[in-house]
Amino acid sequence: MKVAVMGYGTVGSGVVEVIESHKKSITARTGGEMLEVKHILDLREFPGDPHSDMFTKDFNDILTDDEVKVVAETMGGVNPAFDFTMKLLKAGKSVVTSNKELVAQKGLELLKAAKDNGVNYLFEASVGGGIPIIRPMSQCLAANNVEGIAGILNGTTNFILTKMIEDGMTFEDALKLAQDNGYAEKDPTADIEGFDACRKVCILASLAFGKHVYPNQVNAEGITRITLEDVSYISDANGVIKLLGQIKSIDDDHIAAFVSPAVVFNGSQLASVNGVFNAILVRGDAVGDVCFYGQGAGKEATASAVVADMVDSAIHTERRRNFGWGDGSESYVVDEKAVLSMPFYVRAKSSQSAVMSALGNVKFLKRVGQPSDEVAFITDSMTQNELVDKLDGIDVINIIKVTNY
Amino acid sequence: MKVAVMGYGTVGSGVVEVIESHKKSITARTGGEMLEVKHILDLREFPGDPHSDMFTKDFNDILTDDEVKVVAETMGGVNPAFDFTMKLLKAGKSVVTSNKELVAQKGLELLKAAKDNGVNYLFEASVGGGIPIIRPMSQCLAANNVEGIAGILNGTTNFILTKMIEDGMTFEDALKLAQDNGYAEKDPTADIEGFDACRKVCILASLAFGKHVYPNQVNAEGITRITLEDVSYISDANGVIKLLGQIKSIDDDHIAAFVSPAVVFNGSQLASVNGVFNAILVRGDAVGDVCFYGQGAGKEATASAVVADMVDSAIHTERRRNFGWGDGSESYVVDEKAVLSMPFYVRAKSSQSAVMSALGNVKFLKRVGQPSDEVAFITDSMTQNELVDKLDGIDVINIIKVTNY
Repeated sequence: MKVAVMGYGTVGSGVVEVIESHKKSITARTGGEMLEVKHILDLREFPGDPHSDMFTKDFNDILTDDEVKVVAETMGGVNPAFDFTMKLLKAGKSVVTSNKELVAQKGLELLKAAKDNGVNYLFEASVGGGIPIIRPMSQCLAANNVEGIAGILNGTTNFILTKMIEDGMTFEDALKLAQDNGYAEKDPTADIEGFDACRKVCILASLAFGKHVYPNQVNAEGITRITLEDVSYISDANGVIKLLGQIKSIDDDHIAAFVSPAVVFNGSQLASVNGVFNAILVRGDAVGDVCFYGQGAGKEATASAVVADMVDSAIHTERRRNFGWGDGSESYVVDEKAVLSMPFYVRAKSSQSAVMSALGNVKFLKRVGQPSDEVAFITDSMTQNELVDKLDGIDVINIIKVTNY
Repeated sequence: MKVAVMGYGTVGSGVVEVIESHKKSITARTGGEMLEVKHILDLREFPGDPHSDMFTKDFNDILTDDEVKVVAETMGGVNPAFDFTMKLLKAGKSVVTSNKELVAQKGLELLKAAKDNGVNYLFEASVGGGIPIIRPMSQCLAANNVEGIAGILNGTTNFILTKMIEDGMTFEDALKLAQDNGYAEKDPTADIEGFDACRKVCILASLAFGKHVYPNQVNAEGITRITLEDVSYISDANGVIKLLGQIKSIDDDHIAAFVSPAVVFNGSQLASVNGVFNAILVRGDAVGDVCFYGQGAGKEATASAVVADMVDSAIHTERRRNFGWGDGSESYVVDEKAVLSMPFYVRAKSSQSAVMSALGNVKFLKRVGQPSDEVAFITDSMTQNELVDKLDGIDVINIIKVTNY
């Protein structure tokens, strides 16, 4: 079967490599049919690349080629990826993608177009890189009501936090190390502000609960306010700080979905996920907690997920998979700060007595070098808005959610 | 769609419950079609059970009922489950199962019968209870060469080892606690001798490498020889003991597959899998390590996996899934003790100088209360047969494999 790849960056070139280096496993799965890359779309030049005969700068070479049945979109970004993908689906070609931004923004329309045209739009690689999560989750869903999902969805921030926790590096030094190692971009905003994790939360929430969630419906807080002082106090509570994307079922018509730093206690499967690794924990009413772990990024890992989707599309050319979801109302995603009760970690310039008179009993934490006018503690369960009200008049430095995963 | 359940024990009754309590999630996945249990086969009486109108003691009531398209086999054991399953497949009914013993012994024949008759034989629940592993692994396989698999596949033994490691309980006390909690049978042989894990290794190996592996081809060693002294020494090496099922690719025509206690170093995802939880780690050449974690047993968790397979069979009534494998040669599974090199943990009645003259440099370990004539150490990498040769003349108490997962 002839296929095409749009975008010859890290993931796209990995897709071409994996297809060429895994002929045996691919044909074992398709029952003998090979995937053959016929076109590679990219506006850039790649002098000396062995695939020079496949390169094109003209999208129409792919769109109008009837031989091409499956296209991998590894361009990233919404434009022109959305336009290209829509045209391909309408032309009866299946599209698979690693483009989380596009799925989070336009998944509803693209899935509908795929359904209407009897083709597949698959996006396993958009969340968790090479970790199988989209399909296992849809499998769990068949006989479970999902109560909640919590994921370490961004390897860059998890690398930074791991370096802060394990090696006592400052946020700034850990970010620089991530950049030097190629884990973080020169402009790290999308990672460290939680925007990348936010897109993945949208995709997981849409899939798990059947209604599209858009990035602007999800409160996203990154890790820039986390300091070594917080790391140290939370270590005293026998926990670690992770950047989590969380989704909770509220009722049939509402969910909570948010990205924020969170305290995870040691012993949780999520606590031992270190470095650039990702993990996604799904809590079902029948199955309990299941957790999927692996490299959330990386050329070959992500490419292998894209290729697995291409293989799947090649096997099931005529069948659209059951990956659709509908539209949600404007009030579908609630503000978790107003609705969800949980304990919180708080650090403040204050005294234990002031804190106790504001909040009653809390669990105070210690760190080496703690100034006499600084307190840190874990509260009882309440909403974040209630907490902020109660802390009125106290000079709060940081508030971090505490999870029950 | 009418379905039937054979065997109304823990899992079978859970299947009926999950079908009844998850109508909404099931119909969401099937596109509107409900699963309706029409027959429940069991020779026992269940007085007062609300499903009395469904019970039958006659297998032919299911076999000859043309309305019944999908049957859950939750009887366990090879006989009569094999005979019943074969007849159902030949009658054009799909069968799904949690029966690992049957799949490990007879999977080759049953999958062939399913293929020949255009129906499904699915067994997601046979490994890892409710954890999606069979299908994610088959997904990983499409674009990866699997290098190895390591799994904590038996919750009972993992519970016992966790109690020994975390609470300093003896093996005997931990086993008794497991029995009191209902995690271990009165006769715990299948769990503690590694036979249960062995069956799951057979299923994973067959699936991953495409040739059937039978239980008698797999070396299985249980946990009865593990003592608190071993736990303590290995803690000094910054590791824990787990009962692992391991599979390694050797070449196109050979694999290694074995069950044994193994040293897992802290920091590994497998090290933090505690209590009755299971985890399966798959190492692919493109994706790296991916790990699936969850409850490996339990009524509802396992039942939810059976029901997910029933839903899948209901959606794809006419399509057999791509879950076949062939026959292997007699020499397909090698003796890992002769072939695989790895480090080992050794405990012996000996002296450091005797050990060093036998093995050269090793890493000696300490424990509280260590007698002056006892040594424990981690060796360099070698085969187990080489190690045993070199230890000739030394009074060895225990040898445990060290993993690189």
